[in-house]
Amino acid sequence: MSFLTTLEQQMTQANSLLCVGLDTDHAQLPQGSSQLEFNKDIIDQTHDLVCSYKLNLAFYEATGAAGWDVMHQTVKYIHEKYPGIPVIADAKRADIGSTSAAYAEAIFDELEFDAVTLHPYLGSEAVSPFLDYAEKGCIVLVHTSNPGAGEFQDLQMGDQKLWQVVLKNVDTTWNQNGNCLAVLGATYPDELTQARQIAPNMTFLVPGVGAQGGSARDTVLAGRRPDGKGLIINSSRGVIFADSPRDAAQQTVDAIRAALAE
Amino acid sequence: MSFLTTLEQQMTQANSLLCVGLDTDHAQLPQGSSQLEFNKDIIDQTHDLVCSYKLNLAFYEATGAAGWDVMHQTVKYIHEKYPGIPVIADAKRADIGSTSAAYAEAIFDELEFDAVTLHPYLGSEAVSPFLDYAEKGCIVLVHTSNPGAGEFQDLQMGDQKLWQVVLKNVDTTWNQNGNCLAVLGATYPDELTQARQIAPNMTFLVPGVGAQGGSARDTVLAGRRPDGKGLIINSSRGVIFADSPRDAAQQTVDAIRAALAE
Repeated sequence: MSFLTTLEQQMTQANSLLCVGLDTDHAQLPQGSSQLEFNKDIIDQTHDLVCSYKLNLAFYEATGAAGWDVMHQTVKYIHEKYPGIPVIADAKRADIGSTSAAYAEAIFDELEFDAVTLHPYLGSEAVSPFLDYAEKGCIVLVHTSNPGAGEFQDLQMGDQKLWQVVLKNVDTTWNQNGNCLAVLGATYPDELTQARQIAPNMTFLVPGVGAQGGSARDTVLAGRRPDGKGLIINSSRGVIFADSPRDAAQQTVDAIRAALAE
Repeated sequence: MSFLTTLEQQMTQANSLLCVGLDTDHAQLPQGSSQLEFNKDIIDQTHDLVCSYKLNLAFYEATGAAGWDVMHQTVKYIHEKYPGIPVIADAKRADIGSTSAAYAEAIFDELEFDAVTLHPYLGSEAVSPFLDYAEKGCIVLVHTSNPGAGEFQDLQMGDQKLWQVVLKNVDTTWNQNGNCLAVLGATYPDELTQARQIAPNMTFLVPGVGAQGGSARDTVLAGRRPDGKGLIINSSRGVIFADSPRDAAQQTVDAIRAALAE
């Protein structure tokens, strides 16, 4: 079953567009806690509230080969204990074709992720080894959540900005297997509204809710599809390092559901 | 000592601009050979012919945590046995600031690389945690070597192409610590010539010589600096999977030296 089909089933089942980001920075862990045990606890607390989980590879690579193993064990834990919840590799990869093939092997075959985030800069030809995994999700960076995102993304080319050209290409020529999604940061709701006009049917991964200052309500109002899906709303630090991760996840889910009802 | 200083000392000592890319694809290894032993053999054969080594992380990540460990052992082997030869992480990373900090920790502190390749798409603010390591090299993708590189890189914005805007920004605002370099593919010598005009003093990492079809001679003629440096000319598969890696490296070095003498 494809990533998008699995994702939408889980959105329906959990009545949730929330993705919890397991950005388990080892420097922020409670004393005596391991990355893997911490992750398992977060997953057990939140599994019925999420449409997906997302692991940012950086926070595992920071602890070397051991962290790489924790990442794999976390993906397996979700797949075995909570089958039906897809897991996204927030890896932000992209290289020339032969190298992208090795990255795709690492992320899809070796680590068993269901989707990956990709940089657009090298073009679709370079990342075609990812796109060729038709059952996996390929989530391309379009307008990111960071304060300086506009340095290149907002450059004007004729009557369009670079991020708009990227989104159009991803929605058309990149999407031959129907497995492309796009990243739009929650911190730029106006761009999210425009993106929904450019790509009415695409599913967007929206990071930046919570610690980065984006709002779940604004995200839903700006980016929702008529079917009430089409958005993966990610919160990482705002959930996993909250006093009660379950309460933080529940509050975000409640805000999403309330906005969908508006 | 900074990456660029170390690099230029090694260029002088070896009289070479050649970087050997240890893209040790496990599927292409000789029967019974391990990634680490293969790498050590290549390094022992070529250390007096190179200005640097480059490891593409994809080919190690493809074998999981074990591959991550091989990558670290390879970096340590070079640093311990051949001190003075800098080692580049061809990691093509970039994420929002807090995540870039974790990637920088992984690549510079944990894996002990001397330089890293970076995607430009998120802007300089996002990758400032890399740039802040003033002694490390930050090598930003500008015009890549793949056939489809132009999809976005060649987009016209006013009287400039996107890659030209990226290069100008990297050469000026990104380069506050004097530690920025740029990637220009050997398969696009005209763009390399233009890049040298835009950034006369910058050092360029030039992949794509050998298996990808780029020429060492064309690269030197298009991209050299008056001091005979300013180029890191990378060959990966063309050297490491040659019948004689040393002979292949020597031939490339000879071609580089001959072109510099033209």
